[in-house]
Amino acid sequence: MTAWAASPIAHASATAKIKALAFDAFPILDPRPVFALAERLFPGRGTELSNIWRIRQFEYQWLRALGGQYADFWQATEDALVFAASTLKLELPAAKREQLMAAYLQLQAWPDVPAALRSLKDAGIRLAFLSNATAKILRAGIENSQLQGVFEHVLSTDPLRRYKPDPRAYQMAMDAFGLPREEIGFVAFAGWDVAGAKWFGFPTFWVNRMNVPIEELGVAPDASVKTLAELAALLRA
Amino acid sequence: MTAWAASPIAHASATAKIKALAFDAFPILDPRPVFALAERLFPGRGTELSNIWRIRQFEYQWLRALGGQYADFWQATEDALVFAASTLKLELPAAKREQLMAAYLQLQAWPDVPAALRSLKDAGIRLAFLSNATAKILRAGIENSQLQGVFEHVLSTDPLRRYKPDPRAYQMAMDAFGLPREEIGFVAFAGWDVAGAKWFGFPTFWVNRMNVPIEELGVAPDASVKTLAELAALLRA
Repeated sequence: MTAWAASPIAHASATAKIKALAFDAFPILDPRPVFALAERLFPGRGTELSNIWRIRQFEYQWLRALGGQYADFWQATEDALVFAASTLKLELPAAKREQLMAAYLQLQAWPDVPAALRSLKDAGIRLAFLSNATAKILRAGIENSQLQGVFEHVLSTDPLRRYKPDPRAYQMAMDAFGLPREEIGFVAFAGWDVAGAKWFGFPTFWVNRMNVPIEELGVAPDASVKTLAELAALLRA
Repeated sequence: MTAWAASPIAHASATAKIKALAFDAFPILDPRPVFALAERLFPGRGTELSNIWRIRQFEYQWLRALGGQYADFWQATEDALVFAASTLKLELPAAKREQLMAAYLQLQAWPDVPAALRSLKDAGIRLAFLSNATAKILRAGIENSQLQGVFEHVLSTDPLRRYKPDPRAYQMAMDAFGLPREEIGFVAFAGWDVAGAKWFGFPTFWVNRMNVPIEELGVAPDASVKTLAELAALLRA
């Protein structure tokens, strides 16, 4: 499995029936200011800290879900930060920890997002968030980006006390939209979320903003794009 | 949660009832030759390759388990290797891939293991493997290390098509030994496995051979040691 640029024919069949899109948080919200802040607080160590932090942030979600020891995205993220600092032997006083965590409530949309969402809405496509992040993080991001009223549903998996890629997490979008899975396109940021959505059976679009290779999880997205603007163009074609 | 050196009192209460030990694969088998081979095959890039490989090796297990898309440890490990090479833009011809995978069938015990296991057996403690690795890998490691007959059970979670830290995976040791959980000590190599075993309720001993910080998953091992020899001394005390 190395080819992940789906053929135009695959695009056409995947896009033809799309009536709604469910977005992970990060094709919409730009997480880079969190990591830029890490570099300001820990000059010369921010990248290293962020790398470990991000790995553990999601691993802690999956481990807790598998182990039947759910803790929410906020807690998993804060625990992961403490671990990352501890691994690098960086002192992490409460003020720095709180400042880094607060950055998750200050996220804003990537520059191409507002116009792309408007274009999708104009085409009659219904929109929702479907994220492991807490509703508080998602709603703050919407407000910070002046995107109020754009999303019909703001779905955090938190009330289920489960995390994507659990199929019951993806199911939330079908329940909220009241649509069959082939009419809901899932828009992923992370490669693992591409796999989870495809496993569930959603037509899946990868906004591969970080230009990373596909995860080797046995499935490929229906289309890979670099920006939401490209996805809007694809879906309106 | 930063202090993980359990007190002597905690040791005493956790060790007093131990009638059996269930070992993860890697407190027993030394995985370092796999990564040394990566460096020989990719001079100057082996560490980087191994780091990405090891992260994805376990993430792919957890993601597939959560997503209901089980693939065994061998497959997850090979997929992770392909991803790691692809991330680093290293060419990975089939011969190199097969050579690296074959290294998992050539693992041998860490130097302190045979004497420590003998000492534990002499003390009447029953011994088992309980690992996400396939039975083939575990049995090859036993044979390569001349440890035939030492383990009463060689439990791979593979027949369940689940992975630790799923509680049903840890349950295998209780079922095999026919003992209550407080009489079975779990011996972990990885921090996440310490957490899983503690969540399940096993007295848990961490052979922290890599000297890494504790994972921030809300629990601590009953004792942390550097080698199996130390653990044997602790349990015989």
